[in-house]
Amino acid sequence: MTSTTTTAATATAVGPEALEALFTGARTPNRWTDEPVTDEQVAAVLELAKYPPTSMNTQPMRLLLVRSPEARERLATMMSGSNGDKTRSAPLSVVVAADRRFDEELPRLFPHYPGARDLFADAGYRERTAVFNTALQLGYLIMAVRAVGLSAGPMTGIDAPAIEREFFPDGEHEVVAVVNVGVADPAGFRPRGPRLSHEEVVRTV
Amino acid sequence: MTSTTTTAATATAVGPEALEALFTGARTPNRWTDEPVTDEQVAAVLELAKYPPTSMNTQPMRLLLVRSPEARERLATMMSGSNGDKTRSAPLSVVVAADRRFDEELPRLFPHYPGARDLFADAGYRERTAVFNTALQLGYLIMAVRAVGLSAGPMTGIDAPAIEREFFPDGEHEVVAVVNVGVADPAGFRPRGPRLSHEEVVRTV
Repeated sequence: MTSTTTTAATATAVGPEALEALFTGARTPNRWTDEPVTDEQVAAVLELAKYPPTSMNTQPMRLLLVRSPEARERLATMMSGSNGDKTRSAPLSVVVAADRRFDEELPRLFPHYPGARDLFADAGYRERTAVFNTALQLGYLIMAVRAVGLSAGPMTGIDAPAIEREFFPDGEHEVVAVVNVGVADPAGFRPRGPRLSHEEVVRTV
Repeated sequence: MTSTTTTAATATAVGPEALEALFTGARTPNRWTDEPVTDEQVAAVLELAKYPPTSMNTQPMRLLLVRSPEARERLATMMSGSNGDKTRSAPLSVVVAADRRFDEELPRLFPHYPGARDLFADAGYRERTAVFNTALQLGYLIMAVRAVGLSAGPMTGIDAPAIEREFFPDGEHEVVAVVNVGVADPAGFRPRGPRLSHEEVVRTV
């Protein structure tokens, strides 16, 4: 597939080095260097990740940057298995949550359809929409972290209810993942897991 | 924010042109040129999109490329509002589905944890995991479409149960979106919707 990828890349503004940094060469770290993640880097990530599309422009993803030593230790105790130690050793941990009341912003975010908010009167549908679009935005966020030259270590092995009680006491946020962010120490990379073949993933009608 | 983004970009293999193509300058098209999407382009997209991470390497996203005129017309009747006409006019439409039986592949995809499949014995948890990770992979897919120089028009305004009955009769796939793919006609771009500010999205502890 290398030749195909190269052909596509050369036809666009996205060159082979960017494709490697974002897709084919990027890895999920298990060890980090001591280099800190600056507020300026976080702002650059947010500025990229905010643009790709969400359903009806809902943008339900909310982020909590866990920076203080006390909060970092509390968060680490709410992770499964080795994720606690990964979190302790990361320069920055970001809690990713879905805002179930994203609909309150729709009159501003989707102004050409005044009835948009009424579509989400059902709490179950509103929650599913919040979580689905937060997962979609998490995909953009991971790519944006990579695009600014950092690595992302997303984890869903977490005690989400405990994190919600501690950090989102309003009861309207559903924690879906924690993402460690920093400069990877390549010595901590494990062999990449197998990927499904194209034939297993796609069919044509 | 321009200066921040530029600073970050120049520090990495991802230059400002790639950031514009993938994040800041990319748009969701409403009109398309007649240029077809080749099987080679689809393969290049899949080859990029398969690498970014999923929970426990589950990779539950499945894709149906709708190419025949008959299937395209049937699909178009299963879309909400103007999404039917958008689908009729697109060079290629891709149905994105979550495979609820992703767990059958875990012994191969996550071999170092033999008990992985047992974690998904509960059908409800299995379905939520399938949909969450499919949404995450949809984010990667949209970025991969853009990375090979095409545009993506994702739509969740669809009659998912009808599409499942027609195209996924095994009852084990949940359709979450349809993505039109092709070369955008910029004349069809609408003004971009507002984005939430950084302050509305992120806080720090």
